[in-house]
Amino acid sequence: MAEEKLTTRAQDFSAWYNELVERAQLAEHSPVRGCMVIRPNGYGIWELIQQNLDKMFKDTGHENAYFPLLIPQSFMSKEAEHVEGFAPELAVVTHGGGKELEEPLVIRPTSETMIYTMFAKWVQGYRDLPILMNQWANVVRWEMRTRLFLRTSEFLWQEGHTAHETEAEAEEETLKMLGVYRKFAEEFMAIPVITGLKTDSERFAGALRTYCIEAMMQDNKALQAGTSHNLGQNFSKAFDLKFQGRDGSVQYAWNTSWGVSTRLVGGIIMTHSDDDGLVLPPRLAPTVAVIVPIFKTDEERASVLEAADAIYNEMRSKGFRVKIDKRDNMSPGAKYYEWELKGVPLRIEIGPKDVANKTVVIVPRITLDSREAAKPGRKQKLFVSMDTLSNSIEELSSELQAQLLKNAIARREANTIRGVKTYEEMKEIFSKGEGAFVYAGWNGDPAIEAKVKEETKATIRCIPDAEFRSAVAPATCLVTGEKAKHEVIWSKAY
Amino acid sequence: MAEEKLTTRAQDFSAWYNELVERAQLAEHSPVRGCMVIRPNGYGIWELIQQNLDKMFKDTGHENAYFPLLIPQSFMSKEAEHVEGFAPELAVVTHGGGKELEEPLVIRPTSETMIYTMFAKWVQGYRDLPILMNQWANVVRWEMRTRLFLRTSEFLWQEGHTAHETEAEAEEETLKMLGVYRKFAEEFMAIPVITGLKTDSERFAGALRTYCIEAMMQDNKALQAGTSHNLGQNFSKAFDLKFQGRDGSVQYAWNTSWGVSTRLVGGIIMTHSDDDGLVLPPRLAPTVAVIVPIFKTDEERASVLEAADAIYNEMRSKGFRVKIDKRDNMSPGAKYYEWELKGVPLRIEIGPKDVANKTVVIVPRITLDSREAAKPGRKQKLFVSMDTLSNSIEELSSELQAQLLKNAIARREANTIRGVKTYEEMKEIFSKGEGAFVYAGWNGDPAIEAKVKEETKATIRCIPDAEFRSAVAPATCLVTGEKAKHEVIWSKAY
Repeated sequence: MAEEKLTTRAQDFSAWYNELVERAQLAEHSPVRGCMVIRPNGYGIWELIQQNLDKMFKDTGHENAYFPLLIPQSFMSKEAEHVEGFAPELAVVTHGGGKELEEPLVIRPTSETMIYTMFAKWVQGYRDLPILMNQWANVVRWEMRTRLFLRTSEFLWQEGHTAHETEAEAEEETLKMLGVYRKFAEEFMAIPVITGLKTDSERFAGALRTYCIEAMMQDNKALQAGTSHNLGQNFSKAFDLKFQGRDGSVQYAWNTSWGVSTRLVGGIIMTHSDDDGLVLPPRLAPTVAVIVPIFKTDEERASVLEAADAIYNEMRSKGFRVKIDKRDNMSPGAKYYEWELKGVPLRIEIGPKDVANKTVVIVPRITLDSREAAKPGRKQKLFVSMDTLSNSIEELSSELQAQLLKNAIARREANTIRGVKTYEEMKEIFSKGEGAFVYAGWNGDPAIEAKVKEETKATIRCIPDAEFRSAVAPATCLVTGEKAKHEVIWSKAY
Repeated sequence: MAEEKLTTRAQDFSAWYNELVERAQLAEHSPVRGCMVIRPNGYGIWELIQQNLDKMFKDTGHENAYFPLLIPQSFMSKEAEHVEGFAPELAVVTHGGGKELEEPLVIRPTSETMIYTMFAKWVQGYRDLPILMNQWANVVRWEMRTRLFLRTSEFLWQEGHTAHETEAEAEEETLKMLGVYRKFAEEFMAIPVITGLKTDSERFAGALRTYCIEAMMQDNKALQAGTSHNLGQNFSKAFDLKFQGRDGSVQYAWNTSWGVSTRLVGGIIMTHSDDDGLVLPPRLAPTVAVIVPIFKTDEERASVLEAADAIYNEMRSKGFRVKIDKRDNMSPGAKYYEWELKGVPLRIEIGPKDVANKTVVIVPRITLDSREAAKPGRKQKLFVSMDTLSNSIEELSSELQAQLLKNAIARREANTIRGVKTYEEMKEIFSKGEGAFVYAGWNGDPAIEAKVKEETKATIRCIPDAEFRSAVAPATCLVTGEKAKHEVIWSKAY
């Protein structure tokens, strides 16, 4: 089972990613152009994302519902910016039940048009507001250049949709959900994110304002990991979503929408994984620990498997997501290799000596600063008592989870450049392969944004929120030397 | 808030169903023909179905994955029966990204063709088997006559797909999952089901054998609530799903598939609900108990709300799905009416006297045989100590759950007719509005099945499994008088 090593990140980040996704059996290209098959190892990560995010949505008062996959083509045209943004990406159903349809139907690229049509039926007065809904669904946006998890024609996502009585409430909701995404990214995905506002050119088609969380991948490119839109009254006016207000007057509702997708799985992979394969944050790892029994003789086999099974059953009964690898056609080394590739955070080795000592050896998937360093070229090995194994798994899981976030923050900071003096200097930075987050002043002109994109391939990821801005705001626009309107973050992006 | 009463079941079962689904805000027709919107009250039931079934699937060794929504039209034609069965129901995507597609794509009506294409890539040798997978997804089957939850062009479902080394293993899997469905129906949905084999005319297009669970609704019509198919080698041969066997020879795999859908929500409604509205089994009720505070003066209001909030918070913290209804623009009576309509199993009333006595009044949604009968025309009221409220909720929930199953079994038995002597007698039964399950002998001839369907609208629901057969098997075919090949169940069906 001596498989070829992965291409390294340093050799070719993109090839490394593709090989890892395939070899760890996370996803594959399907026979349908642009659509992927998410295999159990990958889908298990998405299930944990769903469960944990869903709980956060419900804790903030949202309910799930389900709206149709198919949308009459005419609906898309009712909001002018919306149709302009999505028309090029639509998949169109023209035939159903053996007949040509009177009006073609599009497969939802997002559901604003359908959902606000329905909200308009449900809302009469201010007492019917707010509506706080979420939908877990598949959407289709026709893509020419696809990449597993990161950009596919069909993807899985959640889309929250809300309607409010006032503009202030809608803004509050938009920011609240951005906060939920940030918290989820940091606490579950172990990915540090910058929150901020998109410029007009990156705004959602039909929104008043789009807020985002932006993460840095290991190739220093940015990944937009989630967006939260204040839709204002654009859709309520297009879909006649009105209500009788407290003062008796008829008013248009204020909407928000917000979403994250299976793209997050790609973000997790590209943030944490290494040249040995997948690295997963324990809170989102379908398998947190794998038990590998080690023995030579039949006698050893019996006693080791007995102890390993006992541990396995105890951990399962306590709710730990553990596996046991009893395959008899593979060496322990081949098993280690496979489980490292597949990103299991903790490996539990148990051999005859361990059984005698009532201990096990735990090997964490990454080096933990909180534990004694291993000798150079070796992995950390932690000797743990069987009696306190569940405590050890819990402790090591949280240490590993924290370590991943710490590493990712350090990497981002190391590749963040503030105080660039000239546009030439920024061009130089983006002409190299490595990429970076470059903080700089911008005069607010979309033409300048377009020029920089044209010349460097970098875009404005966001106008960062106050806590992410530089201590001293840049006074001038890096490109024009004019007075800066905003400090912005420039980066190449996925 | 004095709403009009529902049409009663006796007046018009079908109108009653439609009104109930709409008024309890479970689902609605969408602007897209045949597609429904599942509102939070209805989706909450589906979420509990998903959670509990998913656990049962995982406990039996299955993993979730996700396969594309879109399938190349040519895939559908590779299995002859399959394409014949599904071609009339397909929705076809002809345009994507602004261009006409080279090959049209169909929206999956079911995913055998795509999934076995992928399995064929993943399986080389017998060690790669079995594959035990499940997918939660939406599917589209173009329907002309639709009914919310029961028959819609788009519906949500799960489809299990497995591949095995031997025919025996595939048959074992098929029956195991049928058993899972039966257990789920009885223990969670409180719906008694008959397990059995479909005749060829009702067999899944492409299957060797289709097994089913069949339930009786309150209008005595049958609802096929779930199916489990032994696909034999039909799909493995069509999609080249081969493996090297233990003896070194190349063999085709043996497949099974099995599914249940949002139709189950319709089945729950039609099995348990009454003329006051929805009745839900507590295990699948998004809200198990609703607390209604009752007061007149401001002073009472303060003390009652304080006690009600305390109860609410305690129950929530213990994991009970409870709500509290503090709306101040509605009378308690109007609230009772609404929560009965919406099917909350237990109502908890708390007034000033209750606060003083440290008790509450619990009113179960249906009459419990296990408790003292109420006076004629009154509802059962149970006086319960606040200190032991969580025990009471648990006890009453299981009593109510058991009562629903008991009632449903009694109703089914009362409307099951065995020992019909002549075909005329059966025709007479099905000519009446009420319907029934009629057990009778059948000679095994599809032409006879077709004739009976033509003449009575009843179909063979299944050849029941041994435990559901009559003590003495009918010797002759009810229609022809020839020797009976099987005892079968005739009924009109959804």
